[in-house]
Amino acid sequence: MNAGDRVRVERAGVTNEGVLMPSSTPDHLVVKLDGGYNVGIDRDDADVEILETDVYDIEDAQTDSSSSEIEFDDDLPTVSLISTGGTIASTVDYRTGAVTAQFDAEDVLRAVPDLAGRANYRGRVVANILSENATPEVWRDLAEAVKEEIDAGADGVVVMHGTDTMQFSASALSFMLDTPVPVVFTGSQRSADRPSSDNVMNAVCAVEAAKSDCAEVLVCMHATESDDVCALHRGTRVRKNHTSRRDAFETVGAEPLGEVDYESEEVTFRREHAERDEADPSLSPELDGDVDLLKFTPGMDVGRYGEFLKESDLDGLVIEGTGLGHVHTDFVPVIEDLVDDGVVVAMTSQCLWGRVCDRVYDTGRDLLDAGVVEAGDTLPGTAKVKLMWALSNLDDPAEAMTRSVAGELQQRSVPWE
Amino acid sequence: MNAGDRVRVERAGVTNEGVLMPSSTPDHLVVKLDGGYNVGIDRDDADVEILETDVYDIEDAQTDSSSSEIEFDDDLPTVSLISTGGTIASTVDYRTGAVTAQFDAEDVLRAVPDLAGRANYRGRVVANILSENATPEVWRDLAEAVKEEIDAGADGVVVMHGTDTMQFSASALSFMLDTPVPVVFTGSQRSADRPSSDNVMNAVCAVEAAKSDCAEVLVCMHATESDDVCALHRGTRVRKNHTSRRDAFETVGAEPLGEVDYESEEVTFRREHAERDEADPSLSPELDGDVDLLKFTPGMDVGRYGEFLKESDLDGLVIEGTGLGHVHTDFVPVIEDLVDDGVVVAMTSQCLWGRVCDRVYDTGRDLLDAGVVEAGDTLPGTAKVKLMWALSNLDDPAEAMTRSVAGELQQRSVPWE
Repeated sequence: MNAGDRVRVERAGVTNEGVLMPSSTPDHLVVKLDGGYNVGIDRDDADVEILETDVYDIEDAQTDSSSSEIEFDDDLPTVSLISTGGTIASTVDYRTGAVTAQFDAEDVLRAVPDLAGRANYRGRVVANILSENATPEVWRDLAEAVKEEIDAGADGVVVMHGTDTMQFSASALSFMLDTPVPVVFTGSQRSADRPSSDNVMNAVCAVEAAKSDCAEVLVCMHATESDDVCALHRGTRVRKNHTSRRDAFETVGAEPLGEVDYESEEVTFRREHAERDEADPSLSPELDGDVDLLKFTPGMDVGRYGEFLKESDLDGLVIEGTGLGHVHTDFVPVIEDLVDDGVVVAMTSQCLWGRVCDRVYDTGRDLLDAGVVEAGDTLPGTAKVKLMWALSNLDDPAEAMTRSVAGELQQRSVPWE
Repeated sequence: MNAGDRVRVERAGVTNEGVLMPSSTPDHLVVKLDGGYNVGIDRDDADVEILETDVYDIEDAQTDSSSSEIEFDDDLPTVSLISTGGTIASTVDYRTGAVTAQFDAEDVLRAVPDLAGRANYRGRVVANILSENATPEVWRDLAEAVKEEIDAGADGVVVMHGTDTMQFSASALSFMLDTPVPVVFTGSQRSADRPSSDNVMNAVCAVEAAKSDCAEVLVCMHATESDDVCALHRGTRVRKNHTSRRDAFETVGAEPLGEVDYESEEVTFRREHAERDEADPSLSPELDGDVDLLKFTPGMDVGRYGEFLKESDLDGLVIEGTGLGHVHTDFVPVIEDLVDDGVVVAMTSQCLWGRVCDRVYDTGRDLLDAGVVEAGDTLPGTAKVKLMWALSNLDDPAEAMTRSVAGELQQRSVPWE
């Protein structure tokens, strides 16, 4: 058994077939699957069958990537692919057998040949992280990179991003950027080495959306469990509503802005949106880091949390309240003190759907008297990002929380409300 | 204009017609609507038209309630109505014009004449609070009251409860109680003085469900925006997913257990459930109050929260992580320290739908190594209540978080996962 042999490897009930590659660790076999991805397999208990020896010139294969450089086509728009890591840019980690981020944008282009011929591509890597490790600094770096790509002539930008916190990054860019071109986040719920992977279709649809006339920050992910349509969600209204399904992302409280039909490649918008070239590109990337999101639940120790919040020297606090936007009555004086200390306190609802309204019940009226501002139907996570941005960029951040800045707050969520 | 006159009052664009009642404050008019409810209206800027004088003998009306006492019917089951407050048991607050809780169970029975003839009723008041003020003490009082009602011969129990935290109370009773009869929570998203109120239909359907053979803790609320069907949700799987819609409550990750057709009064169950009289009634009401629910979001100050959690002397911590159950990598050592200090740390997902799985990505594997237990598809709020209960009642609460105790953790959420 040597590198270059075609092998079938069975381990723990999983069979992989492909070409054996040189491995960087003695504990793992590395098999290049026919789709182009490498899989790392623990040698222990692996059952290897050699199908054909020496089918592949390893040196050729390892330098082969340079041959995939694509020539510039004047007739095609230019799309910038920005990689931040995540499942769509990942393969199997040889060390642990789990998935880690280790591809850059050009690797993705090589791994998704279907992207070829759709655009001229620019590629850059802003980060190489699983998205639970995203921070406000990553958001800022990403926004700056997008702005630079737009300034360099990109007709659209695709951001490849882990799905865990994609909605937060998309929200951040929605507030930070005025964009004359589409900025389309996409990712993958199933890694490329799984037969059900959504990475190719999501990437293809995102590129098609990046060529469209919708100059907004969008999230492009499977609209259904089938490989038929990707939904285009407004970055500030989207939420990951399932841990594992490919159609995990949903626009909350409205229909998605539009969709991309995978087969026909047609991009359709059903709702009003900003048009290409309407806005001059500009960037306001500053964020205030002293903002907390606090989810209120019954049994919460108001005294302990009250002390903590007072000592935290916050500039902003987003509360994820119950129902129309409530907390235990004992919490009201805590909030009043925070507001008196200059903290902007904004109310959202853990119901997620529907808007807060603190004028109906006593608790809500007491909260309004305490100085809480109502964030309408802004999603709690989006409200946190917005408040971080508003505190650094707007004269009256409290007032801004009650109106739409980037489509995050809808006047009426649904017609029947 | 005197008490007893029939009047039409217009104020701020709202018109109410009914009989003028004596008011407890000089600032408000109180009008008894034809449906039986009293509305308080601010006198300022109120435009009053007298339609007919002296139509109503106030003294008669005020003692009239005693005539609604219902005689015991041997052929009917006995249903206990327990009131805890909330919109279903509320009318308009004369002081503020907003809705506050001020009805007891018998008032509800008088206000919902449709309940008559369906059962013999027992009524008691356990609390008179808006449900954002519910605490573990209220859950315990409620569980004890339900147990007493069962012991006293109730064939079913209806708990009228505010909708804000109904899912938490229903979860608490699900863990605390073994019940041989249905225990049905119901409430109202729109107060009785609004034409779109859901209080009558929800109460009627809850009583019908309480007469059924499903001996579980259920939540009975509108299944659609129409007045046609109420859904019956398992208490540990239900979530309020809209701030204001009448069909705000949903079973997450499964179909509801069953439904009540309002017109035909038929109660149908579509899923397996505990049957009447299978269980001996028993109560384990102890809860550990030192449990926090922490929602992780990007930008969270790990250092500050880490200190806070360590100083909080917790027994349990439920994390609402991202995606499959992740937090920023910097959080992992904090969690490891907590586990080393004996804190049970359970992972759930803020996605809400789907189950956590920390074996796929590096962060998750690091969390498992740190000693985090996976709560499957248990909803974060339910997981908090469960951990409070498990820490006080089970030998191995950490292990219990990984399996179903009261239907809160499903083996597979949906067939296609």
